[in-house]
Amino acid sequence: MSSSFGTLFKVTTFGESHGKGVGAVLDGVPSRLSLTEADIQQQLDRRRPGQSHLATPRQEEDRVTILSGVEGGLTLGTPIALLVHNRDQRPGDYGEMSQTPRPSHADYTYQAKYGIRAGSGGGRSSARETIGRVAAGAVAEKFLLASYGVEIVAWVSAVGRETGPEVDVLTLSRADVDGNAVRCPDAKSAARMEQAVLAAQEAKDSLGGIVSCVCRNLPAGWGEPVFDKLDALLAQAMLSLPATKGFDLGSGFAGAGMSGSQHNDPFILRHGRLGTLTNHSGGVQGGISNGEPVTFRVAFKPVATIGRSQATVDFAGQPVELAAKGRHDPCVVPRAVPIVETMAALVLADLALRQRARG
Amino acid sequence: MSSSFGTLFKVTTFGESHGKGVGAVLDGVPSRLSLTEADIQQQLDRRRPGQSHLATPRQEEDRVTILSGVEGGLTLGTPIALLVHNRDQRPGDYGEMSQTPRPSHADYTYQAKYGIRAGSGGGRSSARETIGRVAAGAVAEKFLLASYGVEIVAWVSAVGRETGPEVDVLTLSRADVDGNAVRCPDAKSAARMEQAVLAAQEAKDSLGGIVSCVCRNLPAGWGEPVFDKLDALLAQAMLSLPATKGFDLGSGFAGAGMSGSQHNDPFILRHGRLGTLTNHSGGVQGGISNGEPVTFRVAFKPVATIGRSQATVDFAGQPVELAAKGRHDPCVVPRAVPIVETMAALVLADLALRQRARG
Amino acid sequence: MSSSFGTLFKVTTFGESHGKGVGAVLDGVPSRLSLTEADIQQQLDRRRPGQSHLATPRQEEDRVTILSGVEGGLTLGTPIALLVHNRDQRPGDYGEMSQTPRPSHADYTYQAKYGIRAGSGGGRSSARETIGRVAAGAVAEKFLLASYGVEIVAWVSAVGRETGPEVDVLTLSRADVDGNAVRCPDAKSAARMEQAVLAAQEAKDSLGGIVSCVCRNLPAGWGEPVFDKLDALLAQAMLSLPATKGFDLGSGFAGAGMSGSQHNDPFILRHGRLGTLTNHSGGVQGGISNGEPVTFRVAFKPVATIGRSQATVDFAGQPVELAAKGRHDPCVVPRAVPIVETMAALVLADLALRQRARG
Amino acid sequence: MSSSFGTLFKVTTFGESHGKGVGAVLDGVPSRLSLTEADIQQQLDRRRPGQSHLATPRQEEDRVTILSGVEGGLTLGTPIALLVHNRDQRPGDYGEMSQTPRPSHADYTYQAKYGIRAGSGGGRSSARETIGRVAAGAVAEKFLLASYGVEIVAWVSAVGRETGPEVDVLTLSRADVDGNAVRCPDAKSAARMEQAVLAAQEAKDSLGGIVSCVCRNLPAGWGEPVFDKLDALLAQAMLSLPATKGFDLGSGFAGAGMSGSQHNDPFILRHGRLGTLTNHSGGVQGGISNGEPVTFRVAFKPVATIGRSQATVDFAGQPVELAAKGRHDPCVVPRAVPIVETMAALVLADLALRQRARG
Repeated sequence: MSSSFGTLFKVTTFGESHGKGVGAVLDGVPSRLSLTEADIQQQLDRRRPGQSHLATPRQEEDRVTILSGVEGGLTLGTPIALLVHNRDQRPGDYGEMSQTPRPSHADYTYQAKYGIRAGSGGGRSSARETIGRVAAGAVAEKFLLASYGVEIVAWVSAVGRETGPEVDVLTLSRADVDGNAVRCPDAKSAARMEQAVLAAQEAKDSLGGIVSCVCRNLPAGWGEPVFDKLDALLAQAMLSLPATKGFDLGSGFAGAGMSGSQHNDPFILRHGRLGTLTNHSGGVQGGISNGEPVTFRVAFKPVATIGRSQATVDFAGQPVELAAKGRHDPCVVPRAVPIVETMAALVLADLALRQRARG
Repeated sequence: MSSSFGTLFKVTTFGESHGKGVGAVLDGVPSRLSLTEADIQQQLDRRRPGQSHLATPRQEEDRVTILSGVEGGLTLGTPIALLVHNRDQRPGDYGEMSQTPRPSHADYTYQAKYGIRAGSGGGRSSARETIGRVAAGAVAEKFLLASYGVEIVAWVSAVGRETGPEVDVLTLSRADVDGNAVRCPDAKSAARMEQAVLAAQEAKDSLGGIVSCVCRNLPAGWGEPVFDKLDALLAQAMLSLPATKGFDLGSGFAGAGMSGSQHNDPFILRHGRLGTLTNHSGGVQGGISNGEPVTFRVAFKPVATIGRSQATVDFAGQPVELAAKGRHDPCVVPRAVPIVETMAALVLADLALRQRARG
Repeated sequence: MSSSFGTLFKVTTFGESHGKGVGAVLDGVPSRLSLTEADIQQQLDRRRPGQSHLATPRQEEDRVTILSGVEGGLTLGTPIALLVHNRDQRPGDYGEMSQTPRPSHADYTYQAKYGIRAGSGGGRSSARETIGRVAAGAVAEKFLLASYGVEIVAWVSAVGRETGPEVDVLTLSRADVDGNAVRCPDAKSAARMEQAVLAAQEAKDSLGGIVSCVCRNLPAGWGEPVFDKLDALLAQAMLSLPATKGFDLGSGFAGAGMSGSQHNDPFILRHGRLGTLTNHSGGVQGGISNGEPVTFRVAFKPVATIGRSQATVDFAGQPVELAAKGRHDPCVVPRAVPIVETMAALVLADLALRQRARG
Repeated sequence: MSSSFGTLFKVTTFGESHGKGVGAVLDGVPSRLSLTEADIQQQLDRRRPGQSHLATPRQEEDRVTILSGVEGGLTLGTPIALLVHNRDQRPGDYGEMSQTPRPSHADYTYQAKYGIRAGSGGGRSSARETIGRVAAGAVAEKFLLASYGVEIVAWVSAVGRETGPEVDVLTLSRADVDGNAVRCPDAKSAARMEQAVLAAQEAKDSLGGIVSCVCRNLPAGWGEPVFDKLDALLAQAMLSLPATKGFDLGSGFAGAGMSGSQHNDPFILRHGRLGTLTNHSGGVQGGISNGEPVTFRVAFKPVATIGRSQATVDFAGQPVELAAKGRHDPCVVPRAVPIVETMAALVLADLALRQRARG
């Protein structure tokens, strides 16, 4: 009952991993925005599996079609329906796994909640569900850039125990990020991360990691006290992604260990308006953007599907040894980069419209 | 525009720190629930300032009145309006600070957003806003306990750089937590934390910390894919609290550094139903409760109001030295304990009703 | 679960007829709007019982207090809580009627829905619930007039079988309407209506009637296709009022009997912009305002509480003769006039903000 | 921004009349409901143009595809996406009419609202938008019938000035209604109505009419006070349909002319539970169903597109004579019958789930 997100710029996603298709309906996009399928496809391509030697070689094409809401390359202000057909439809593929809930997957909880679940591939809890989000997020990004100059760049800051250095959030670009297969803008760190992924793959195991993100050029004033604060909605958005376990903003968990005199961000005059000397606040104060870059991190757990054998029990409680067959991504964090950007864009586009309503 | 939270069990809060009062309207509470003002007052009292030598001695009484929705000690199913009068009304108290946005407060961002702000005390961004939440949350807790046996216990797991040990989340009680002034159930850690707070106070500085929380006895099946996942709504709820900078669940940020074979929670048969051997998932899989305890942490930054002098600029950009007068809490984390419980209760009560609707 | 109305300009009402008080929380009101309690009181006074010899002499004072959201006579952009204390609190007044559901009241349906109901006076289904609406609506009217020059005037166009003539919707004022006790701007019709009310009172019976309303000076463009059309939200708003049985707009039910060539409103050039020669559309086309006056009617059934004896059965199914004691309004339609204006204002204020969000 | 309807059983529609397709996403449908495309197609077929000699001969096939949310003939509890491809795609068909807003169409208001509009066919204001609703409504009907035995039957009670007699709302079936081309269950009245339609067609003119509807077998207790009353949501739902001008329930506008002693519905004991002797309330008291049949009427204006020449002005204000070319339905009221049923079903399914949440 909750496949919709946003108050004014509102996305509704649909689709199981092995049904006819996945997609989204995006309502509330302002009219007369220039928009083509190519605008959307480029971000879908960044999300797609099989982009590098680190990822599964499945070739899902994931071509988007705009079904409505756009005419002559311009948005009409009406709902934009976006559809990606599934090439791999196996609705009836009930196999061994259907008797056994995969550890740390959603098989057990979907069954408990709905009394039924999709026959294969994770259904709605699959990462394919994010295709609809990414398609919608690409529209949100287009709007934010065109109307406010807002830029959103995410990158991989950790893979397993390998972490990258601080990056310059004022200048980092997507080209920097996409320069290597792990999407860590620091080449040396990226090489270590890549080794870690290959080692996990060798061991039929998997790794998690951290995606960091910066949103630049927001005006001061976005974010709705008290429950729809900018940071609160970002937190919801990120934790709504599959496999996420944590979110922090600005100083984050490390900030809990600082003193107030260290942590406070003094105001300064910069280019004729108030800015802050430091940015422990992560660009948000009292839930409202202050004009500084919004910076946050998202923790992803290791992929639950692994080739190693795991001792568990089936739905009936009988002991079972489970080992995933075929090839699986040992680490999805690089592919999560555009998905994190997507959710940030959906949050910001909605808050932009809500602030506009104040006139 | 966002002082409401919840879809079916819905709270709307109101009130500035120095206006006539603060409170909440709670819509969707099931009828025929036993409810008195005393049920609510006990949690308000745990939130109140001035409870210990570590906290500010201001004596705010914060007595709650139920204005509607309850008759003869039973809820009617209609909106429950809860009001706490402010004893300290100073709507016109514009002083020195009104010319200068306090660093890491919301003065600057409220002014940017609304073009106006409350004259003193932080207005709506003040911690007093949480009174309405806590009052409403007490009702949610009553409902959850009566209908499902759900128990929620939060505690302080870090103050500044002082951290506490693992606790037994299956048995921890509020009495354990309230056994000392810092609300850390481990006495030795609590003593170290208390010293840290007193040292910060001495230094006219402040500290942050971490509040951990466990929710027990949830049935499997709560949480709404895909945007209103249990963990996603908890994240929103916690980041909507003043001074929070981060949220993680189960293994959290640490889980990003684990391998899949370490992190996966194998299923086991326990008391005739499926449970998990470990609980890195934090009781949530695919955004839905799996029947294990839901465990999460919330990071709080250090209090922004400090007695130390800070160099900053006023709204006009002129350099100013700011130092807060009077006494201020050097660490609000102990008082945040019931507030974290409150937000968890509001999330769970709403998801309980949403799952009920499935019949 | 549905005591809230509006998407951006959002009102939540609370309160039973004989509890401690009734009121509303109004979220999303733009900041820096001039607002005092007197602005609100004037419309509450028009709603109040006992204003004329036609109405019940109960003297309910209904004084409003602004609890939050306003400082120094200006709105802060934060929730505005409005409270009216009940002077007549009888929460335990269970009498004969509690055994017998009053015909065409909500006693039976509240009991069926909630398994409990307020002990006296109708609780939440009472007309006193509209106090919170009217208080909130006065704020909406203030905003609409200040920001757009929008004027809303309702009047009584029928009492029982007595109907009034067409009125000039371009010039009608509230002073015209309030010129007599029945609030019909045509004096002759008003006299007939007054006689009808007195005759019903004499017969211990009651009458219904029709309230008509015009909203002037709306810009073209308000109303959200497809489900939140201007006329759809007006219909919901009006049917949410106690005792209403119908709504129509422009030509309304009579329009169903016209031909297209009669009914179509040709466009004309008027004062440099497009207008329509006729206004069968009632100012709305495709659910969006076209700049012409928005005109609609609301049908009210006769008051269900009558002094005449009625044969019915009690909750146990036993035959009972019921006759209301004391004095009751034989016709509430005159007092419904400000309530209809209120709901129109709440609809329009919300749609105004939603259109603003398009920038 | 408002293409969604419902709180728990929520439909979102999309699509322009001449874009790639129209459809809906339906979220919140309970799991394990039997559902096939044929279940949906039958109601789409009743809505389709060209079914009789009275309607336009355009052959739109309107085949529905279920894209998601159903597997093996059972609903999964996840969003059900429904798509109907448009066969007649003319996105660039800007003709003479694009310079001239058609009288009593939405051309002018869409242009005023969005600054752009679909190039042909009315875009989103077209009757084709209702395809998504009808597809979704068929699912709602399936759920209501399977879970509660609820039946919904609408019929034509007036075409222009020709009206039908009272019908027996307890026994009326869809077969009765579909027995003739105008969908009036009384054959004699139907014949008069048919003559009226043919006469209007001959005159290159059009007619409106009234659709009546009954919903049977609702339990007492559906409807959410105070703003989402059963009658209030029905009113919104019906006025959200193209070309509607009015709604009334039970006694409706006629009830405004009755006295209380005539209008009140006395309770009686019937089949062991309380019922009412009369049903002026239309099955709803205090906004909540009382277990009696819910009866209401919807007024439709005459079709705005007529072959007759009309004097109007173009967007620039220049006088123009407009006459629609080709063949057009002179009266859409017969085809509105399944659409009215659809909106009633969507309202009831949502209220059923909301009441279920009370446990």
